[in-house]
Amino acid sequence: MTETLPLNDLIALVRPQLDRLNRELVLDLAPQQRDLLPLVEHVGGYRGKQLRPMMVFLSAMAAQGSSHSGSLNDDVVQVAKVVELLHTATLVHDDVLDGAGMRRRIATVNQMHGVEIAVLLGDYIYAKAFHMAVQLPDPACARWLAETVRVICQGEITQVLHRFDVAWREDQYFKVIAEKTASLYAAGCRLGGHYVGATEARLRALEEFGLELGIAFQIVDDCLDLEGDERVVGKSLGTDLTKGKITLPMLYLLRRDATSAERLAGLLGLPEQEALRRLRAEFPLEHAIAYAMDEAKRRVAKAQASLSALPSGNARSALSQIAGYVLSRRL
Amino acid sequence: MTETLPLNDLIALVRPQLDRLNRELVLDLAPQQRDLLPLVEHVGGYRGKQLRPMMVFLSAMAAQGSSHSGSLNDDVVQVAKVVELLHTATLVHDDVLDGAGMRRRIATVNQMHGVEIAVLLGDYIYAKAFHMAVQLPDPACARWLAETVRVICQGEITQVLHRFDVAWREDQYFKVIAEKTASLYAAGCRLGGHYVGATEARLRALEEFGLELGIAFQIVDDCLDLEGDERVVGKSLGTDLTKGKITLPMLYLLRRDATSAERLAGLLGLPEQEALRRLRAEFPLEHAIAYAMDEAKRRVAKAQASLSALPSGNARSALSQIAGYVLSRRL
Repeated sequence: MTETLPLNDLIALVRPQLDRLNRELVLDLAPQQRDLLPLVEHVGGYRGKQLRPMMVFLSAMAAQGSSHSGSLNDDVVQVAKVVELLHTATLVHDDVLDGAGMRRRIATVNQMHGVEIAVLLGDYIYAKAFHMAVQLPDPACARWLAETVRVICQGEITQVLHRFDVAWREDQYFKVIAEKTASLYAAGCRLGGHYVGATEARLRALEEFGLELGIAFQIVDDCLDLEGDERVVGKSLGTDLTKGKITLPMLYLLRRDATSAERLAGLLGLPEQEALRRLRAEFPLEHAIAYAMDEAKRRVAKAQASLSALPSGNARSALSQIAGYVLSRRL
Repeated sequence: MTETLPLNDLIALVRPQLDRLNRELVLDLAPQQRDLLPLVEHVGGYRGKQLRPMMVFLSAMAAQGSSHSGSLNDDVVQVAKVVELLHTATLVHDDVLDGAGMRRRIATVNQMHGVEIAVLLGDYIYAKAFHMAVQLPDPACARWLAETVRVICQGEITQVLHRFDVAWREDQYFKVIAEKTASLYAAGCRLGGHYVGATEARLRALEEFGLELGIAFQIVDDCLDLEGDERVVGKSLGTDLTKGKITLPMLYLLRRDATSAERLAGLLGLPEQEALRRLRAEFPLEHAIAYAMDEAKRRVAKAQASLSALPSGNARSALSQIAGYVLSRRL
């Protein structure tokens, strides 16, 4: 598990399944209603690295101790599709909540078609995803993912209710990011294993792997929002400050001393560019980022350690490297 | 089927099941997260006549030819709860789309807690409803209702895309209201019958009953938005004009003559009170309403006729009377 491969080499392990997923998702979403086609095609443009479906495939392979994705059954592909659609639905609604105008270098649905369409399209994709989940004869996917979406929303609501709350604590932050982000990774990894009949011990290991990786992923995301380059990241940045979302690097700065806390509180709610410029000029942002990234590294190490419950092989090694990749990502 | 009972007497037929549903829904939705409790309690205040769960119960009874709700199994209660939750989720998101401030005489979620919370709370309730649907051993409820929510969203999206479209046709209007409103009535009635093991012929009759009743319901709703009294109806009115939603009474006025069409187009987008005042003063609104209500009456007659496929009895008679009630409702 020590050698590192570029992400593209990891993707190659499950390339046929990813290609099949992307080919089928267009047809699955394509509505009879011609009016909706441009909307469905628009969100198709959001396609990113597709870490979540990749992890469903690799988890299924790792649980089997298999190195060949050819052994994956149709149910695993269906699970990966549902996970990717649920993720897409949350992105569409997240952009409404954040008032974000750009996602993966293209205009968001709310920017291009208005908030109403974005709310409804998110609902549409959720419903389609649930409908696909309940097509599986084994109800585990539908049950686990319906509960996961409830938990995601619970985390997001808690976050909104505590915006501008400078008394927000780290344990609250970690609970919220576990709910709103990591729960879907955890569910995807677990369900990948479930649909190849893995033991409960392996399912728990996969779930923990997804959870810790997901937490690390969100911490890195929160760092990028403060120190990333919009042209590289490809989405609106600085929105956390403007929206008053208190993330881990901010918690570090808030806890430094009373003056620092008060000055940072003064930046919350300002327009993105001004808030970012002043944060970078007036605060030791690099220390805050280093503090948060240390936590992300610990989470990645924990995720990687949980993989020891699985048989060694290409797939397990790929999962471990994806966890490492999360730390280095710049988009 | 000719005698008419007040709605309260019809409700009495399924009172124990409705009471159970309302008692259990609070517990079902109550989150572990204390932050969310006030939100869940808030939407509890939206509780209306609960026509949809009532119709699930009565459909199950009618399909069995039973007059006693005591014979209903737990699965039917679960279906009714899921239908009521899905309806609640659509209300929460509808109020976001309409920018509505009042619903059943209380502030809407978006008015009280902002658009972000309203979007997320709707998602939360959808997810909870799907999770409850997939608890049922027979997957019919989860499958049918996931597809129904997709259809509801499809109808709503089509409506938004055709706002201010004065070339909008009646057939498009009927398709949209069948999708966005009537599909959930149709699904509820069908599933009520399904979970007591009714024959396909009876399920189709129940589905058609729900569909036609739902179409009539929406036509009446669209009439109330133009001619209702806000103090009686208990929600914001005139929003269709302001939002440019072309409803059946408006289609009547648009088709009268070119001058009338042009003048009506000029009212679309104006603030509610001004648009309503001018519509009532400058157009033969009573003719437009009469035209739309004639259509609603035909739909109700069709709904009632479809009940002939079911055994006669209290429950069938109650369904028929609910269809008649839809025409007379003022809130």
